[in-house]
Amino acid sequence: MPTSAPRITALDTYDIRFPTSLELDGSDAMNPDPDYSAAYLVLRTDAREGLEGHGFTFTIGRGNDIQVAAIDALRPHVMGRSVDELCADPGSLYRDLIGDSQLRWLGPEKGVMHMAIGAVINAVWDLAAKREGKPLWQLLADAEPEWLAGQVDYRYIEDALTRDEAVAILRRGRQGRTARELDLHARGYPAYTTSPGWLGYSDEKLTRLAHRAVADGFTQIKLKVGADLDDDIRRLRAARTAVGPDIRIAIDANQRWNVDEAVTWITALAEFDPYWIEEPTSPDDILGHAAIRTRVAPVKVATGEHVHNRIIFKQLLQAGAVDVLQLDAARVAGVNENLAILLLAAKFGIPVCPHAGGVGLCELVQHLSMFDYLSVSGTTENRMIEFVDHLHQHFTDPVVIRDGHYAAPRTPGFSARMLPESIARFSYPDGEFWAAGLAGAGTADTVGREAAA
Amino acid sequence: MPTSAPRITALDTYDIRFPTSLELDGSDAMNPDPDYSAAYLVLRTDAREGLEGHGFTFTIGRGNDIQVAAIDALRPHVMGRSVDELCADPGSLYRDLIGDSQLRWLGPEKGVMHMAIGAVINAVWDLAAKREGKPLWQLLADAEPEWLAGQVDYRYIEDALTRDEAVAILRRGRQGRTARELDLHARGYPAYTTSPGWLGYSDEKLTRLAHRAVADGFTQIKLKVGADLDDDIRRLRAARTAVGPDIRIAIDANQRWNVDEAVTWITALAEFDPYWIEEPTSPDDILGHAAIRTRVAPVKVATGEHVHNRIIFKQLLQAGAVDVLQLDAARVAGVNENLAILLLAAKFGIPVCPHAGGVGLCELVQHLSMFDYLSVSGTTENRMIEFVDHLHQHFTDPVVIRDGHYAAPRTPGFSARMLPESIARFSYPDGEFWAAGLAGAGTADTVGREAAA
Repeated sequence: MPTSAPRITALDTYDIRFPTSLELDGSDAMNPDPDYSAAYLVLRTDAREGLEGHGFTFTIGRGNDIQVAAIDALRPHVMGRSVDELCADPGSLYRDLIGDSQLRWLGPEKGVMHMAIGAVINAVWDLAAKREGKPLWQLLADAEPEWLAGQVDYRYIEDALTRDEAVAILRRGRQGRTARELDLHARGYPAYTTSPGWLGYSDEKLTRLAHRAVADGFTQIKLKVGADLDDDIRRLRAARTAVGPDIRIAIDANQRWNVDEAVTWITALAEFDPYWIEEPTSPDDILGHAAIRTRVAPVKVATGEHVHNRIIFKQLLQAGAVDVLQLDAARVAGVNENLAILLLAAKFGIPVCPHAGGVGLCELVQHLSMFDYLSVSGTTENRMIEFVDHLHQHFTDPVVIRDGHYAAPRTPGFSARMLPESIARFSYPDGEFWAAGLAGAGTADTVGREAAA
Repeated sequence: MPTSAPRITALDTYDIRFPTSLELDGSDAMNPDPDYSAAYLVLRTDAREGLEGHGFTFTIGRGNDIQVAAIDALRPHVMGRSVDELCADPGSLYRDLIGDSQLRWLGPEKGVMHMAIGAVINAVWDLAAKREGKPLWQLLADAEPEWLAGQVDYRYIEDALTRDEAVAILRRGRQGRTARELDLHARGYPAYTTSPGWLGYSDEKLTRLAHRAVADGFTQIKLKVGADLDDDIRRLRAARTAVGPDIRIAIDANQRWNVDEAVTWITALAEFDPYWIEEPTSPDDILGHAAIRTRVAPVKVATGEHVHNRIIFKQLLQAGAVDVLQLDAARVAGVNENLAILLLAAKFGIPVCPHAGGVGLCELVQHLSMFDYLSVSGTTENRMIEFVDHLHQHFTDPVVIRDGHYAAPRTPGFSARMLPESIARFSYPDGEFWAAGLAGAGTADTVGREAAA
């Protein structure tokens, strides 16, 4: 038993890949055959009861090893650090990681290196929440406004959000919080489902899953579009027929178009009353999104899952380029940068509907949306978290969906822990699944996916 | 001797690091202690006379191994490919690399993965130019406008530049080309020097190197700023005193500021008549640069060395955010994406003054500027290539500077080949220099740097 204050004793990394390409789960206009993967890490400590922090970033297969190498490169920044100090101020590590001048050259604050930082920062928040014995959403909602505002890096966003403004938003967020927390426990947080809409699914499967979504209590579904206009018209017609006029149908082009193409395509689909068009073009194209939004109204424009940092989100808001902001839990630099993004969205009055799915993204992002409801925006109006029914069985604290809502997690932490047997089985290339060459003989069972029907 | 058409037989990678931090060469407000490095690759072929293609991307030390791993991940895309087909259409590989849907998730088109693509694409152009027996600038200038326009990916930029517009710009660029080529051979391409201005240098060294720059025929120098305003005022005064009123002094903040800070700081330095302010804020902040530009005129705003792709450059031009566009040869996806960027700049009438220095960036970028002069913008007015007198001795075809101008390279290729003995000595961590622990006993000689005085 250690006599001194507890420290980080190891940062262990794992290259986890699920062979989702076998079933075309996750297929869209830009990603025809993803193998959903996680560059996963565990922060180990010598604290009481084997306290650990778990984190990961999501990739879709090849390159997951590069992502793991990038996480490995951050190890010197965390080894030996005081657990108490880290948990008291995760922002100190966040600033150290984005401030490493040599690694910063590989971004700055974007791509592989930035996602690696996100994975490590999220693991620290998992550690901090477990140490407090609270689910992360509650740790955040219970925190002092001044402390939370101090977790944000205002560099490059101060022209849109100052620290004083952040504190004011968070103070205002305390009003009525008790009632909202009761509501959250009773009702959960609204979800929509993407499960019916993958591009590789047949019309029959789409229709069946759309019916199922409505029966399950979802009020919005999402369809992938953008590969072929005739196909999209046929699929949207089938979906609208299946769900009726009162269920929202969002469509998602996964960055497929130029500005003019986007406008033409969306206009051709307007008769099916799409609620939003997601990722109509490059996530880097702020002005392009603004132009598209003006031209396709009243269809809303949504983006964010590939937006690489708070600086691009800031400009999407400044330029009036989006109606819906879709933050991702693990593409930006983790909870600290997502605090900035939630506060920016609140400042501009734009609803946040997080990207989820992938591996464990639903598990992570529910904490951020629930905190947003309790303490930042103070509302769930026009706000929903994406839900995809893949791969949850690999987590120790999987999301729970009831009547189209995410139930508030009660287990301490960030819901980020993967089952040891899943890590062992799907580690690449030496885990049991990959070593046995099972990918070639894929079945729904070897894919490790829940039955979709 | 192969009987079939020649193929790519290997993609060999090298992690090369020069211990420049020992002398504070390259030190600036965000990068206090860089070790200039290259993630370097050689494409080997079974073509006659051992034809090879060389390419690299530049980093500043830690993380160079991650960059090498990212290049390694691209190997399956090039192995076994026909040399003839690759050289006839490098764009086919460019499209394959940015289109790899699984690797694309790690960007898209940004950061580690995109720089890796740039290194490989540049190696292919080196191969193609050697095969034609021409320096790259000449290969490009001799190419048909339609073929060159076909090397560009218009996705996400078509709202600013169509293929027809690209062809028109390149056709117009043929007028008067012969006279410009004679001028290029006679005079070279204008350069400016950053060598006096590193933040870690003493005032005495700054003054001495500024005098030397003017004596060497340079008409512009550049100083790093942004760490401390009083220091900057003192250093700029010393520089202005040294060079007199007729030499341009550019200043470079390396992304140090928020918008308001930038305006305050630049205004405080205005009395020394800075020609441009470079990287006043985040390279991602298009709207921030536009705001700064409006408020600091007539000081010009320059950026680009960290701009990660053509989509951000497009918006910097659309938003009127820059007076000077500073493309980098190896941060974007190589020659193909830089063709797009040169054409966009020409369309908007903004001069290109490339970023250089680092490891081998001067060697690469001279080809792009010379091609721009001959075939795109058709002028060198207000255009200069950065020059830094570091590390050229490690290349087989180092840049030649005469009277403040880059002499046009005559050796076939992209000037990208590093000396085998430099590769052997500075490979990390097993090369002779690093294995011997010489970094701790650094001298100008072990640093492998030319004498600066």
